[in-house]
Amino acid sequence: MKLPVSTEWLLHCATTLAQLGPGATASAAQLAQYHGLPQAYLAKQLQTLVKSGVLAATTGPRGGFRLARPASEITLLHIVEAVDGASAPYECREIRQQGRGALPAEECRRPCILAEKMRSANEAWRRSLAGTSLADILDALPPSAHARTRQRMTDTT
Amino acid sequence: MKLPVSTEWLLHCATTLAQLGPGATASAAQLAQYHGLPQAYLAKQLQTLVKSGVLAATTGPRGGFRLARPASEITLLHIVEAVDGASAPYECREIRQQGRGALPAEECRRPCILAEKMRSANEAWRRSLAGTSLADILDALPPSAHARTRQRMTDTT
Repeated sequence: MKLPVSTEWLLHCATTLAQLGPGATASAAQLAQYHGLPQAYLAKQLQTLVKSGVLAATTGPRGGFRLARPASEITLLHIVEAVDGASAPYECREIRQQGRGALPAEECRRPCILAEKMRSANEAWRRSLAGTSLADILDALPPSAHARTRQRMTDTT
Repeated sequence: MKLPVSTEWLLHCATTLAQLGPGATASAAQLAQYHGLPQAYLAKQLQTLVKSGVLAATTGPRGGFRLARPASEITLLHIVEAVDGASAPYECREIRQQGRGALPAEECRRPCILAEKMRSANEAWRRSLAGTSLADILDALPPSAHARTRQRMTDTT
């Protein structure tokens, strides 16, 4: 069970955008350079965050990516599910209804207890990620981090 | 992020073995027939549970698989990690130390806050699975289930 490598990329890109302040944008090129990532592939990944409503993309000479809503309203779960999808890692194929041990359908109206427990674990994971917003992440960074990020993101020398 | 299809197989096989009572064994053929699963592939998967200490395998004419310890001491986490490994789904490659925004090493002695939050979510998932034993699963089944499982597992007609 693995999350895509780009999960780390997008968590960091979203954190960086959150540090730029309201309305400020950054291009895929700027974000790629800032994070030392391959620009073309990063640009595609950033589009998945746009599709899922985490980022907004603006066009034009000063266009780029920005958060689509306040950092306090974007959780780690929003970003992780934008990258990896929201489907649960455990799939119940109703083994209990097949083979010599098959249960009759009337005993299978409620979900399998094993599937239920696997679902609960996934919900615990999702709840944990949903409990941290980008604003929480920013609060946990050193006070000097925001100014440094802004300076390095905009420095084109 | 997906668990292998065999996760469901092995959760059900372990539950079935737990229902057979102390000392009783079942062969891969019996378990495959009971659950309607491909025997050769299931036999390989059962060996992963033996390697991880969840099941014990005995040889000889009455040989087969049984729980390696009491059902109360085998959790869903033991089984899931036997199938899928225990490595965390999120990998931190220290993006914060690369590119134009690279932080100096002395600011990276503690883990990245994003990696920390991802680790916490994984721990929440693991804790949830570790909180349910096979004995708990058996307790949640209808009282008639155990006798029926035993009868169908040993019925060779």
